[in-house]
Amino acid sequence: MAIAAETAAMRRAITLAARGLGATSPNPVVGCVILDAAGDPAGEGFHQRAGGPHAEVHALRAAGERARGGTAIVTLEPCNHTGRTGPCAQALIEAGVRRVVYAVSDPNPQATGGADTLRGAGLEVAQGLLADEAEAGNTAWLTSVRLGRPYVLWKYAATLDGRIAAADATSRWITSPEARADVHRLRAEADAVVVGSGTARADDPQLGVRGIEGAVQPLRVVVDTGATAVRPGARVLDGSAPSLVAVADDAEAGHLPEEAVLRLPRAATGPGLDIDALLAALHARGVRSVLLEGGPVLAGSFVAAGAVDTVVGYLAPVLLGAGPAALADAGISTISQALRLDVTETVRIGPDLRITAVPVPARKGN
Amino acid sequence: MAIAAETAAMRRAITLAARGLGATSPNPVVGCVILDAAGDPAGEGFHQRAGGPHAEVHALRAAGERARGGTAIVTLEPCNHTGRTGPCAQALIEAGVRRVVYAVSDPNPQATGGADTLRGAGLEVAQGLLADEAEAGNTAWLTSVRLGRPYVLWKYAATLDGRIAAADATSRWITSPEARADVHRLRAEADAVVVGSGTARADDPQLGVRGIEGAVQPLRVVVDTGATAVRPGARVLDGSAPSLVAVADDAEAGHLPEEAVLRLPRAATGPGLDIDALLAALHARGVRSVLLEGGPVLAGSFVAAGAVDTVVGYLAPVLLGAGPAALADAGISTISQALRLDVTETVRIGPDLRITAVPVPARKGN
Ligand SMILES: NC(=O)c1ccc[n+]([C@@H]2O[C@H](COP(=O)([O-])OP(=O)(O)OC[C@H]3O[C@@H](n4cnc5c(N)ncnc54)[C@H](OP(=O)(O)O)[C@@H]3O)[C@@H](O)[C@H]2O)c1
Ligand SMILES: NC(=O)c1ccc[n+]([C@@H]2O[C@H](COP(=O)([O-])OP(=O)(O)OC[C@H]3O[C@@H](n4cnc5c(N)ncnc54)[C@H](OP(=O)(O)O)[C@@H]3O)[C@@H](O)[C@H]2O)c1
Repeated sequence: MAIAAETAAMRRAITLAARGLGATSPNPVVGCVILDAAGDPAGEGFHQRAGGPHAEVHALRAAGERARGGTAIVTLEPCNHTGRTGPCAQALIEAGVRRVVYAVSDPNPQATGGADTLRGAGLEVAQGLLADEAEAGNTAWLTSVRLGRPYVLWKYAATLDGRIAAADATSRWITSPEARADVHRLRAEADAVVVGSGTARADDPQLGVRGIEGAVQPLRVVVDTGATAVRPGARVLDGSAPSLVAVADDAEAGHLPEEAVLRLPRAATGPGLDIDALLAALHARGVRSVLLEGGPVLAGSFVAAGAVDTVVGYLAPVLLGAGPAALADAGISTISQALRLDVTETVRIGPDLRITAVPVPARKGN
Repeated sequence: MAIAAETAAMRRAITLAARGLGATSPNPVVGCVILDAAGDPAGEGFHQRAGGPHAEVHALRAAGERARGGTAIVTLEPCNHTGRTGPCAQALIEAGVRRVVYAVSDPNPQATGGADTLRGAGLEVAQGLLADEAEAGNTAWLTSVRLGRPYVLWKYAATLDGRIAAADATSRWITSPEARADVHRLRAEADAVVVGSGTARADDPQLGVRGIEGAVQPLRVVVDTGATAVRPGARVLDGSAPSLVAVADDAEAGHLPEEAVLRLPRAATGPGLDIDALLAALHARGVRSVLLEGGPVLAGSFVAAGAVDTVVGYLAPVLLGAGPAALADAGISTISQALRLDVTETVRIGPDLRITAVPVPARKGN
């Protein structure tokens, strides 16, 4: 029984973990299932929000006495440090768990060492079960730990011929209601949503999550060098969730709420603000995942900065033959410099296609 | 037994029919399987080339005496007219076939009536088995009969952001070898391959089928209004297959082989030659399917003329941020005029995606 039951439990734990996406930063998402001594599920839990109990604590509580002599199945190595909630390794030991199976090691130097603590207390510890799936579920957080900046997912919506609007700038209903609903899921899973001043000026977007119950609203960020695009009354300042307007060090921003102004250096070359400085400032505020919603000019700068970790394109089966392209200048002038990706998923979303792709590792940061 | 055996035989007949794609025009592709009186396959055949025996004749020959009392499964209604090969309805009657099952009625006024002749001779006749699949296999020909012009499949290869080349016009290896091989299959299935003078000038393409054994070479067509792009020595004039250079009525084309010159009127509005006149001239030469290989400017005119029946896009997971778009001006300036399509297939071809889409019927010809 052992292996099948543990695999099923890990799959369940990965599913549970995903429910925390968008709500746990700066922590990872984690899911946990406790199997009792007979190998039957006795309790489960996931890390629901930063500052709240870790997954293991939720699961142990649910399992109660049945945890004794049982097995804990966790998507991430149990933490060893006493943060706001006490170390999970200790909690597992105290609950009398006999065996711990985790998928992915904790790369965070502060949290690592949980496995050693468990082994030191005489528990059986196994690592690697469904590691790829668990890693995929935690991509954003793992990427942010590795790179020391938030993970960036760039989303665009375009026609089959790569246009985001018609020649006269009209763009309503390029993609379907289904695709637009899917974007709200991406927003819900992100810690921050970022757009450029061009998009703010053209669309006055609200940037909040709509239609997803219980979603944590992301931080809304407009990159507006001169502080001229976001005016008082802009929907992004509606107070329904925190907002930031990133402006140049020397910009005149007296018309903006003080707490919404983020001052940043200008880019050393090219337009606007320094992308690395923007990401560092967001990271310092606990943002681990950014949904970059464009437009094409800002996305071009992110690509040029090597700061796009995943691309999600919604392609509508529509032809225009004119209008702005999905991606503007990214500093690429010849084919050998092109940013090459691997397609990781293609799915139909209503009448549209959603294509997910990640930069080919060897070329990353080119 | 009957239904399962007949369905299996029809599926086989559809597969056989497809082998004729690119070789049978102005005729359709047709496949046929003869089941003997016991319902077992006794012979099969397909229409291999214009002027050669029809599918039914091949299959009856293969079945010999076993056809007597048996069933003929045919993808298209057996023809009734005495063309180069004699009417198939008559051949089936003479062979003593008891029952005929066909998928799609023949819309060709000259050939229709086969079913009536068969019934008149006392045979059992059934229509409609796997009709959708059989129709899909014959799309090009059926479209050409319906519209009185060749069916047009526009193929393009682009990056995820819709570029067909980098800013400096370099474009090598945007798509993979697998995708390029797939394009040769499209060429083999087409009666003619068409490109614009811009592509001829930039790439000097040969436009032949390579790497597909037994393929019939398509007619190669360059649309070159002023007769300035295709020069003596151009690869498209290499004599390996017929070529046509479409030029304006008044163009100076003395440097081109006389038999390769196709004189056409200029477009009433917009650049170059009249697209409808081009398609009519090709139709008159027996061309029933055209593979339009671009470039973007010529494709724009085809879209504007309502003369694209299927779009096949090869999307490479590559970002450029600059460079020409896959489709140029198609007379669409605002989003409500966009050409809307239905995606009919998405497949991975090596690292790339191949997306097939057809104009939404209600909007067709908009
Ligand atoms: N279909 C989609 O997926 C999608 C998504 C978003 C937007 N859109 C459309 O895109 C259009 C707007 O796009 P856009 O490209 O004009 O504007 P954008 O990318 O939203 O904003 C570009 C502006 O951001 C500012 N910026 C600040 N720092 C920058 C940096 N490092 N690099 C680049 N820009 C920086 C610059 O203006 P300042 O320096 O003056 O601040 C720049 O002009 C709108 O029509 C909108 O509807 C479509
Ligand atoms: N990635 C791909 O799938 C793909 C495929 C093909 C080409 N390409 C690339 O595309 C580039 C060339 O594209 P392009 O758009 O410049 O050239 P194009 O579309 O091949 O040719 C356009 C030219 O065709 C002539 N033409 C004649 N009748 C026309 C009509 N009714 N409408 C429009 N044009 C008509 C016009 O020149 P005249 O009137 O002077 O004859 C026009 O300038 C090359 O770089 C090539 O490598 C890429």
